[in-house]
Amino acid sequence: MNTQPILIIGGGPAGLEASRGLSDLGFQSILVEQRDVLGGAPIHHNYAALTPDMRPAATAMGEMSAAADAAELVDIRLNTTVTAASGTAPNISVTLSGPDGDQDVSVGAVIVCTGFTHFDPGQETQMYGYYENEDVITLVDAERMFKEGNLVRPSNGEPPKQVCFIQCVGSRDRQIGNQWCSKVCCGIACKQSIEIRHLLPDCRVFVFYIDMRAYGFWEDELYWKAQEEHKVSFIRGVVTEITKRGERLLVKGEDTTMGRPVEVPMDMVILSVGMEPSAGTRAMSALFEIPLESHGFIHTLGGPLDRVTTGVPGVFAAGASTGPADLEDSVTSAGSAAMKAAAFVTLAARGTA
Amino acid sequence: MNTQPILIIGGGPAGLEASRGLSDLGFQSILVEQRDVLGGAPIHHNYAALTPDMRPAATAMGEMSAAADAAELVDIRLNTTVTAASGTAPNISVTLSGPDGDQDVSVGAVIVCTGFTHFDPGQETQMYGYYENEDVITLVDAERMFKEGNLVRPSNGEPPKQVCFIQCVGSRDRQIGNQWCSKVCCGIACKQSIEIRHLLPDCRVFVFYIDMRAYGFWEDELYWKAQEEHKVSFIRGVVTEITKRGERLLVKGEDTTMGRPVEVPMDMVILSVGMEPSAGTRAMSALFEIPLESHGFIHTLGGPLDRVTTGVPGVFAAGASTGPADLEDSVTSAGSAAMKAAAFVTLAARGTA
Repeated sequence: MNTQPILIIGGGPAGLEASRGLSDLGFQSILVEQRDVLGGAPIHHNYAALTPDMRPAATAMGEMSAAADAAELVDIRLNTTVTAASGTAPNISVTLSGPDGDQDVSVGAVIVCTGFTHFDPGQETQMYGYYENEDVITLVDAERMFKEGNLVRPSNGEPPKQVCFIQCVGSRDRQIGNQWCSKVCCGIACKQSIEIRHLLPDCRVFVFYIDMRAYGFWEDELYWKAQEEHKVSFIRGVVTEITKRGERLLVKGEDTTMGRPVEVPMDMVILSVGMEPSAGTRAMSALFEIPLESHGFIHTLGGPLDRVTTGVPGVFAAGASTGPADLEDSVTSAGSAAMKAAAFVTLAARGTA
Repeated sequence: MNTQPILIIGGGPAGLEASRGLSDLGFQSILVEQRDVLGGAPIHHNYAALTPDMRPAATAMGEMSAAADAAELVDIRLNTTVTAASGTAPNISVTLSGPDGDQDVSVGAVIVCTGFTHFDPGQETQMYGYYENEDVITLVDAERMFKEGNLVRPSNGEPPKQVCFIQCVGSRDRQIGNQWCSKVCCGIACKQSIEIRHLLPDCRVFVFYIDMRAYGFWEDELYWKAQEEHKVSFIRGVVTEITKRGERLLVKGEDTTMGRPVEVPMDMVILSVGMEPSAGTRAMSALFEIPLESHGFIHTLGGPLDRVTTGVPGVFAAGASTGPADLEDSVTSAGSAAMKAAAFVTLAARGTA
């Protein structure tokens, strides 16, 4: 059966899974990636190891990229963005703007895999002093250090003796307008705590949290192990201020389990920054006129029974474009979106869509 | 291309999604359900309304069942179980035992959608007195009452004035051997709290919890609303004992946020029971020799990057057969499994699997 190719926007985990899956099924796709490399956030932001199995992100994403590359029916376009769209599925005309200029192609369906953006903790929350104190970093900054196998205080290049994570920075916070839970930061903080204890066995690690939202492998492989094998201290509490005390940082807040104020000196503070809708999500939403939900992620129509079908016929979404998602969510939803997009063009070709 | 049919075991949300999706894609499937009705746990256990949109479960599952029923390429077998299997994919011989006796068929791939079992709170945790106190019920018992639109104390048929939920019953509990988080009970308790406040506006509702694990729509639509619009009291704490005091129940425990013991009289206690591997999961694991993970759910091979491929080639799993899952997880993983199963039989038919 002759069907139009399916356009996949974004070459991260979701886009890679969707394109390879479609090729396996015998469907042509065009995979558009705005950067010069596939692999999405794990590659672009230099993630070290993936949860829960601690495989190097470069290896895991490299394998997914190679599989998409080797797939017969995937047409990969790097350094390319979608700059215009018109018509309706299964005949959508899109303009792809890449290194060789603009090209107009017709596609049968679209899968938006535009991922997320890390919350910028300097912009809206002043109390953590991310821009003021060199030793206040984010999960993303820490990943880069773990990748280099070298966790040191940016201020003096020395290994820290005491480090804490502050959870829900840019998440579950109505003051800054980000009410949503970013879902993965609890598990990532557990993972990084273990990595710190591996690299620096004498370093004490604390995690200040509201609720520890870790289930499945996040709990089995990371949360329990961080607590029990690696002696990381989890403190249910709220951090209200970080100030300088001599060469160290003073973290002030409340231990809500013990019901008392805490003031702990730290050498480094790692802010567990959450996920926000990406610029790509906003741009593709505008271009294809895809409705967004209240937080700015792509709205899907089917409640709990369909998390990939958007408000525009023939346009599907996967991964963190629809809300905070871990790798498992991204790859699984990409499979579901690929199936629905393939079914959409198949039914259209049969004349029943 | 001629491919063998795909066997889908279990007619709940995951099995229904997989079978309809495969039919849309042009692949034949046989959907085997041991009961006399499709719809899985939501139908079998008389769930009232689904999260987060509060649609009646019967309506939502009815629509999914009707879609599978109407799908051209789905062969539905009710009252049927898989009783023997031999050979390897893409040529697995299975025996289907149903109302008309045994039938041997050859299938190209298998998707196990055998769901979960609710934890039985009477069997292993004596402290809550589920078998002793009529007014101690479970989330499942409560669903049946909500479906009837009539929440009353079983002991005297009167509407309760004070109700509490106890979270993590049969979850996160090493003493009874269930270490895992069941992922959905936080959200379901929030949903049921709202339902209680709708039915009985004068009834006070409390939720005793360890961590409130609610993200995505669970948080937006249920947790926040239960707290803010419906004035449900969430108490971070541990309940250690339930005893009778006159006609009421006395709930004793510790409020860990306030750091003090609590003793609260309740008219009803609802135990938020977790998910365990189903008998069907165990049986199919034995029959197809599918390795299980440490908690007894089906083990999947790809870490975070593939949650549907099992240790047996051509055998995939979806929904709660691989671990606690909500409807969103079940339907999404079913789409992913359907895609991979279809790709498996396609590649096999092309001679490249």
